[in-house]
Formats: sequence, structure tokens, C-alpha cells
Amino acid sequence: MKALILAGGQGTRFWPLSRELYPKQLLRIGGGHTLLQETALRLGPMIKPADVHIITNGKLLLDIKGQLADAGIAGPEKNIMLEPVPRNTAPAVGLGALYLGIDDPESVIAVLPSDHLIKEKAKFHAVLRKAAKLAEAGYLVVFGIRPTRPETGYGYIKLGAKIDKGSFKVERFVEKPDTDTAANYVASGEYLWNSGMFVWRADVVLAEIKKHMPELSKSLGRIGKAIGTPREAAVLDKEFSAVKAISIDYGVMERSKNVAVIVADFSWSDLGSWDAIGEVIPPDADGNVSVGKVVNVGCKGSTFYAEDRLVAAVGLEDVIIVDTPDATLVCRKDRAQDVKEVVAELKRRGYDEHITHKTVKRPWGSYTVLQEGPMYKIKRIEVKPGAKLSHQMHHHRSEHWVVVAGTARVTNGDQVTNVHVNESTYIPMSTRHRLENPGKVPLQIIEVQNGEYLKEDDIVRFDDVYRRP
Amino acid sequence: MKALILAGGQGTRFWPLSRELYPKQLLRIGGGHTLLQETALRLGPMIKPADVHIITNGKLLLDIKGQLADAGIAGPEKNIMLEPVPRNTAPAVGLGALYLGIDDPESVIAVLPSDHLIKEKAKFHAVLRKAAKLAEAGYLVVFGIRPTRPETGYGYIKLGAKIDKGSFKVERFVEKPDTDTAANYVASGEYLWNSGMFVWRADVVLAEIKKHMPELSKSLGRIGKAIGTPREAAVLDKEFSAVKAISIDYGVMERSKNVAVIVADFSWSDLGSWDAIGEVIPPDADGNVSVGKVVNVGCKGSTFYAEDRLVAAVGLEDVIIVDTPDATLVCRKDRAQDVKEVVAELKRRGYDEHITHKTVKRPWGSYTVLQEGPMYKIKRIEVKPGAKLSHQMHHHRSEHWVVVAGTARVTNGDQVTNVHVNESTYIPMSTRHRLENPGKVPLQIIEVQNGEYLKEDDIVRFDDVYRRP
Repeated sequence: MKALILAGGQGTRFWPLSRELYPKQLLRIGGGHTLLQETALRLGPMIKPADVHIITNGKLLLDIKGQLADAGIAGPEKNIMLEPVPRNTAPAVGLGALYLGIDDPESVIAVLPSDHLIKEKAKFHAVLRKAAKLAEAGYLVVFGIRPTRPETGYGYIKLGAKIDKGSFKVERFVEKPDTDTAANYVASGEYLWNSGMFVWRADVVLAEIKKHMPELSKSLGRIGKAIGTPREAAVLDKEFSAVKAISIDYGVMERSKNVAVIVADFSWSDLGSWDAIGEVIPPDADGNVSVGKVVNVGCKGSTFYAEDRLVAAVGLEDVIIVDTPDATLVCRKDRAQDVKEVVAELKRRGYDEHITHKTVKRPWGSYTVLQEGPMYKIKRIEVKPGAKLSHQMHHHRSEHWVVVAGTARVTNGDQVTNVHVNESTYIPMSTRHRLENPGKVPLQIIEVQNGEYLKEDDIVRFDDVYRRP
Repeated sequence: MKALILAGGQGTRFWPLSRELYPKQLLRIGGGHTLLQETALRLGPMIKPADVHIITNGKLLLDIKGQLADAGIAGPEKNIMLEPVPRNTAPAVGLGALYLGIDDPESVIAVLPSDHLIKEKAKFHAVLRKAAKLAEAGYLVVFGIRPTRPETGYGYIKLGAKIDKGSFKVERFVEKPDTDTAANYVASGEYLWNSGMFVWRADVVLAEIKKHMPELSKSLGRIGKAIGTPREAAVLDKEFSAVKAISIDYGVMERSKNVAVIVADFSWSDLGSWDAIGEVIPPDADGNVSVGKVVNVGCKGSTFYAEDRLVAAVGLEDVIIVDTPDATLVCRKDRAQDVKEVVAELKRRGYDEHITHKTVKRPWGSYTVLQEGPMYKIKRIEVKPGAKLSHQMHHHRSEHWVVVAGTARVTNGDQVTNVHVNESTYIPMSTRHRLENPGKVPLQIIEVQNGEYLKEDDIVRFDDVYRRP
């Protein structure tokens, strides 16, 4: 059995904690690991690390590799496919089936979102095993979740004829219902939530795509012929750009006659919005969830997430507050889905608070812009032990570096020196330089940039261990 | 006519914009000047600057002097009285009458809070003039405001017999009423809001204090005897500490038979809470007031104050959001008075977000703590043209300074050098040093402190133009 982890999601609904370049799957939500790390760790020992594949986009590649390495997960980092452009799940799972079926077209593939929360690993494995059997027999298998509330944010699955204990033919898929309809579904006992987790044989899903999505199938066929040739990357780029963005649910599952559902009995949340945070962190007696430095005067049913500042709330009911270093969200709980409208508005206005965090992760560590003013910018830079930034140069700025923790090895023109805590150095404009951490503890420096142009794109890279352009 | 501006208020109700060391009267709210500056400027040319007196506390002294100087107000800075401890308004106005009546016991004094908003200066002067006449005739005069809504946050004044056009004897003062009572008061036309602005003769108010607050009167008598002697400061300290904290309304006005009210026809707000911000900044068609970088998705009747970060709000109704660099407040509008409970809780927890802002004003300029970590602290320091910090030394920290704007004159041990933009210097531990701005534009430096103890009290001052200890 192989796994295909879908890790290209944009995650606008968890803004401002998630950003375009740091979506939900990369976040730690109520646990020691990120959702992506949890998703990969959850598969062992049932699926071998070498059989775990990930599909994502180029912007997230270095972060995903970094997170796998940080969690000690070796194997999947060699199996990362990149979508040239986002095209929803149908093209992604089609591409996955194409590549994962090369050696053995009858390979069984578990398709798993990277940003769901599942707590009971043993139960999850039992469901995977049962699904593998049905998939081998030629079914497209979906995991259904017994609904616990009339949720209007999920699609539902109507159960058909029983196949075996806990597995059924799917009578039909239904799109997100209104509240009354959802309540009827829950009361009837005949409907499950569509979890978005699937298991199938590579050849079976490709055949179903051919039947229901002939255009996508033709594109996949052309990509398949190019695999292993020098044209591979160019053909993938061209074909992927041309296909329609459609979900596998809409494109195939709702149309196929060949779908089985397994009643998944593990606890599950897709963390679809801030409203779901109560499923991760237990609320207090007044129904409030508080993370960080929070003062609450008479609030009920509310969620307070304070990242590094104090949040004080007075008299609120069913309100979500998320306070991050560069953006604060305050949202009525039942409007949590509309956070995506905020993100859309930020795009329209040309702001950048939806793109990156104030602290930007890099493969070598991270940096935080502490302040920007006319002609200057102040950053706090942290370099992991043993890591190094690229050998680089800036045309428009000079840099003062003060080491506040660890030891820096600094290449400054032709000179290489070690700079220790409470020492500083100066990198003049247009001078080739490199910052490394040769030590065993994180290196922290304060960088004061001076210059007339201080954007990140004023960088000429001469040598980069991470092979960035 | 003399003025006594009451400027010792704590201003917890405008937290987090106001702080213990930066209360409401020092804030710019909807105008180019701060409320204190407006209060002083509003008196000219009717009351001469030399006749404007201010009573406040020692912690606010340098800020008040700085604000007077910044607004070009010369005169009142020589007439600042300091309350040794806060004791509400009765002791403060008693002390004011004592000192302002030294030359002429029949001096007419206008007692004015420093944190009210009054827009129509000419009308204000007309009311002052009318009040002065009644005061000369021996009345304690209070300014009454025609109520425009059943406000429960104010005290009310019941009109008695008419004295003259627009002035009446006061039948009685009533404390803050409930909503129904307030509505009856407004409908009757016989009640005015108590504005907290008073005019009286020094000798008259001292006589009334003697009659209704004999303990306070005795204390004032002992202070009076010490004026001009070497014991003055010590006696003031001792007597002020011993008197009860009582408002002049409760201590004298409500009991005196000798009170007149003038119907003040100028627009007025005491800015008693965040709820009042709509009186300063006009709301949009949905009743929202927005200041700063705000994204509003479907909110109504709400106030958004974003100081330097993005604030996004979704689906809120009648909610106040105030976002400052170190604290965010989210409050239901009708609970705006309970912001003081937040401040009380901060005190209990030993936090300091109620005491100072992240940017701390100093007589020479300001500093902002950009980040603190173990063994290091980063500050942005701004020095006004011509200003200098004290000649000082730290036992536990060294300091790296990088100039990002202006030119610094740096005394470093025995050396005095000029440090220019994009240059840096290093102050070792236990070295006497001084930072000055000899130039014509503000000096901005980034300071990186290294050391095992980084609190503000690690400072030995050798010479200080502001005579701080």
C-alpha cells in the first residue's frame, strides 16, 4: 500500500495563523507536531516511509522538506511531486495515480489530506486495512464519518447496500446542505460526512477519470508518455496549466457507480475553520478556549488566541479573536467561514498580511522583521546549528550584524571571521558575504539594514546549499 | 480670572490607549493636539497663560511640561502643583484655592478637567464670562450640559429657581441614575448633566470646604501656614496623605446651598469610555468608526482602532476593538465601562501593560522595545534635535548603537565622537556614556543591549538636564 499526501492547500480559512506561504498543514495546532508531520507519522509502521508520496507546490517545498527532517521522517522527502499551478484535487490525485502506478498499475493508494486531525492511530490503521481490501477488489473507497452535529460545512454520503460489516456501497454524494436538511440527515442515520480521504487502485481511479473526465485523462496520458524523457517537466507544466480545477469528489466520486464507503470510527476533524478549534483544545466551563496571554471579563463561548501580545476581552459571546504579530482577526463564530472574504479583500488592496508571517521560515532558520523605517530595516535572524545562508551580495544596502546568541562564522569579502555574542560586524554594500552557524546552539543576530531599497529581491546569490535561484 | 486644570487623572477607561503613565489627557484623540494641550489652548486669550495653573502628580510632570512646550504654551509650566498621592478632586481643588488665593483671596478660579472635549471656543468663553459674574457674587458655579440621551454614566443636576437667562440655582445633584430614571430626567427638561467644570472664588470654596469637610479644611489650614517656609513640602506630603479621597461633587457641591448652574451650550464630551469615540470621529453609514489599517466584513455599530497592525473584523455588531503594539482590547460596546476591570486584573496578575506603552516618551524623545530575549534587548531610540540623554553608566549591560537617521554625538568614556547614518559604536559595560542629538532633524538609533540584567533600573546618572534622580 502506498500513500499520497495532498499538501498543496492554501488554507485561507485559518488566517491570520495560516498564510499563503504557510498554510494550515504547516501549523502546529494543539500538538507537538505540525498537521503535515502528524499525517506522515500516522502512517507508520503500516505504510513504509519510502512508499509515502507528497504532492504540493514549489512555494512550500523547502518548508515541507524542513518539517519532514525536523520530525525525523526519512523517505517521503524523495517522493515529492510539484503541481505547477493549483488545480484542485482531481488533477493532483490523477497525477499521483500516474506516477505511483508506474511500477505496478494495481498499486493501492491511500489519498490523504495533510491538514486533518485524527487522534486514534490504531483505529485509523484498521480502517486503512479494510479499505485496502475493498480497493483491491476494484472499489473507489471513501472514509465516511458518523455525523455528530448538523454541520453545514461538509458534504454528506448516503449509504447504499451493505457490503460487509462497516462498509457500504455509496448511494449518492450530496453537497453541503442547509441546516434543516443537515439535521434530517443526522437524524436519519443514513448519512455520513465525506472526510475527503480515499483509497483506490491506481489503474481503477485512472479508468474512472477516463470515463468521467476525458479531458483530464488525455492530459494525464500525454504526461505519462513524457515520463522519463527530457520533455517531462515541460509537458507536465503545459498539461497541468491547461486542465480544469475540479475536485475529485465532483469530477469522479459523485458520478462513479463503483464507490464504497467505510464507516470510520476514529475521532476526526478537518479543522475547516477557527470554529473547529474547540475540537482540539477543550473549552472551559463558560465555553471559552484561551491560548496565550488572555484576560477575559465575562465572555462566553469564545476563542482567544494570543500569539505574543496581551488580548483582553470584555462581555463577548461566541466571538473568535486571533492575535498575531502583524494582524488581528475578530470574528463572530458563526461567520468563521467568511474569514476567506478578509483574505480576498487583502489581495484586492494589495496588502501582504495574507502571504507571509512576520517571522518567515527559511531552510536555514528564520527571520523576523522587527521594524521598518525610511532607509532602514531591522531583522532578527536565527540560524540553525550547522546551517548557512547563501553566499550573497546586495546592491542597495549595507548591513550591521550584532550577535546576541551563539557564534557566527561570517564571510565578509575575502575575510572569514568568527563573531561571538556581544560582538558586531559590518557588511558594506556590494560586498560578497555569507552567514553561517558553525556551532551547536542556534545563532541569533540582530541585523540593521541601511539603504535606499530594502526589499528581499535585492539579492545576488553566488552559492546556495538549498539551490534557490 | 485664573484657571486650575485638573491633570492627575489615571484614565483607566481608555486602556489600552491610555496607561497609568500616559493617561487620557496626554492623548491625541481626534485632533492635532492632546486633550491637555487643547484644554490649555482653549483658555486664551481670555485667561492669560501666566494665570493658568495645573495640578497633577509627579509621574506625569515631565510629560506635561513637554506637551506644553511642544504646543508653544508658555506660562503654565511655572504653575504646576503636584499631588503627593492621588486623593480625588476635593483635596486637589482645595489645594488649588489655597495657592491661587494667596495674592488675592477673592480670585475667581475656573476648575477644568484636562481630558474633556469642547469644540466651540467662543461659546465656552461666553459661559466662562457669565460664570465669573456669578462666582464674584458668591456662588459655587457648575457648568450643566443639556442631556441628549439617557446617559447612565453621568451625574445629573436638577434645576431650581432661575437666576438669570441661562443660569439657575441648583435644586439638587443626583448620582448616576438607571436607564429609566435617566430617560425621565431627559424627558422632563429639568435636569442637566454635571460636566465637572466649576467656577468659584478661592475664599468661597474654602469656606464651603470648612463647612462641609472640616477635616480637609484643617489640613489645608496647616498647609497654608507652611507655605513659603522650609517645611512646606514636608507638610504638604503629610497632610495630603492623611486626607480622604473624596470628589468635590460629593464633598461640597451636593451639600452646599450656594450652588448655581449655567446651561452650557457648547458641544461637550467627557470621553468617559471607548463608547464615546463616535462623538469625536464620525461613524460611517453602518455606524462603524475605523482608525488605521482595518478590513471590515459585514460589521455594524462597531469601533476599530488599529495603531500599527492590520485589524480584520467579521460579522460584529456593537463591538469595540483597540489594537496597540503590546495589547489588544475587544469589548462589547455596552460594557465599555468595564475596561477598568481589565486594568484591575492586569494589576492583580502583576503584568505591566496597564502602566506604560511599548513606546515610552521621555523628555529627550522616546524609546520603543522592539524585542526582548534571554540576555538581549533591542530598542529603537529617537532623540529630539538639540536634546541629550543623561550622562550615565550601566553595570550589567553593554550597548551596540547603529545610527539609522540623523547624527549622534556620543560620549564613550573620555572620547566624544560624531556617529553618522549607517555607522555604529559600542559602549562597553560600566563605561560612562552619553547620547546627544546635536543636529536639526530627529536622531534615530537602534540599540542592541547584551547582558544578564536588562531592566531600566540598571542606570547610574552622573548628569541630567532633566534633573531626574
